[in-house]
Amino acid sequence: MDLSRVEVVLVRPARAANVAAACRAMKNMGLRRLWLVGAEALRLDADVRGFAYGAWEVLDQARRAESLAEAVAASTLVVATTGRPLAGAWSPRRLAAGVAARAGGGVCSLVFGPEATGLTGAELDACHLLVHVPTDPAQPSLNLAQAVLLVAYELRLATRSDADATLPPAPDVAEAPAPAGALEEAVQELRQALLEIGYLDPANPERILTELRRLLARMAPTRRELVLLRGLARQASWAGRVARGREGKG
Amino acid sequence: MDLSRVEVVLVRPARAANVAAACRAMKNMGLRRLWLVGAEALRLDADVRGFAYGAWEVLDQARRAESLAEAVAASTLVVATTGRPLAGAWSPRRLAAGVAARAGGGVCSLVFGPEATGLTGAELDACHLLVHVPTDPAQPSLNLAQAVLLVAYELRLATRSDADATLPPAPDVAEAPAPAGALEEAVQELRQALLEIGYLDPANPERILTELRRLLARMAPTRRELVLLRGLARQASWAGRVARGREGKG
Repeated sequence: MDLSRVEVVLVRPARAANVAAACRAMKNMGLRRLWLVGAEALRLDADVRGFAYGAWEVLDQARRAESLAEAVAASTLVVATTGRPLAGAWSPRRLAAGVAARAGGGVCSLVFGPEATGLTGAELDACHLLVHVPTDPAQPSLNLAQAVLLVAYELRLATRSDADATLPPAPDVAEAPAPAGALEEAVQELRQALLEIGYLDPANPERILTELRRLLARMAPTRRELVLLRGLARQASWAGRVARGREGKG
Repeated sequence: MDLSRVEVVLVRPARAANVAAACRAMKNMGLRRLWLVGAEALRLDADVRGFAYGAWEVLDQARRAESLAEAVAASTLVVATTGRPLAGAWSPRRLAAGVAARAGGGVCSLVFGPEATGLTGAELDACHLLVHVPTDPAQPSLNLAQAVLLVAYELRLATRSDADATLPPAPDVAEAPAPAGALEEAVQELRQALLEIGYLDPANPERILTELRRLLARMAPTRRELVLLRGLARQASWAGRVARGREGKG
């Protein structure tokens, strides 16, 4: 993985010192691109900037977004970190081993939630992959900047030891995984279709939709493949609408 | 390596916040034993203790020594960390792989120097082994607590016998990718559904079906996920049949 294509996304960070310390940790490991989401109230005062020692430009060049979706729209792989050992979560090392293949030639977003609560369920569901650092159960909670450091460290080591010669050549654009925004559009079109054909429970469509989103993200569809899937969704929508009209009449 | 036999030795730490943060990081990774050397003047005030969140007992039970030699006297392996890529220095990962053998049944000391200067030449010389974290040359200097975290993290991963950290945990049957035969059954059910909803050209369904099969194979669905997909296919089939009947009548 080209580390210049890895972005760190801090969602609603409560403590400015943690944001600054995360910048230093990022630069220690060769990462430079930071997003701050929902952090309008965060004050990065002089006394806090010391925590970003040597990495002030990472802090100063951080981009701001109002929502997670906005911050990750251009990414091909969106990785959520969780402090809980959720089912299916990967270790940072496994992520590092697999991230280049999964992100293709695109951008990989590493998403970290607020210090006290972590990401919401909806935010976790919107990501493609979960990562959990295997901490000691007696003290599972990592400081935010420490969590950033560990994930970045594994990516850095995996990059350094890459036997690039053994990897397939970088895919061209048509073959590259589509960005998260395009994937999400297809998911929403699919959602509509699955409601129309009566496959999703209208009272609770999100549970199964989350499973399908993970499946889709895992296969890292190209733009061409998304066109196929969206065509399929539209055709199913049509069939569902007509069928339901007919059933209603019957 | 039994982590209860690993000790962290902080030599002349200048900032109490770093000591406190190191305690939290140690406990995150299952380490509990801390030495403070030449830190008589260090004030661990209330405002600093927040950095040791959840690991206050590590801080309170830290032992004090006047010299490095005193702190490591009972250890069988003394590892010095250095911020410079000194000749012969090991990476934390190599250390983790080799530490148990080197330490035998004894204690391993991990020695960290002052934030600004690191250990002196004499102190480095007194240790058995040097370790250097491979940071980015553009920002080589790690925060003290971050350095403690990374070395402790590698020891922890090497110790966990349940999970070879480079591999995903052995999935149970429900989580394992389904065999090719089961995948093909789902593909055929999907084929039927896509014909029913008019998405596949009945004269030549195989071209697009092949693309979909590739997509599915790439995501390596589990049996549970195949159940989802087949349910989806059946529901689409139903909608397609009803819709076509209606269109035929119209």
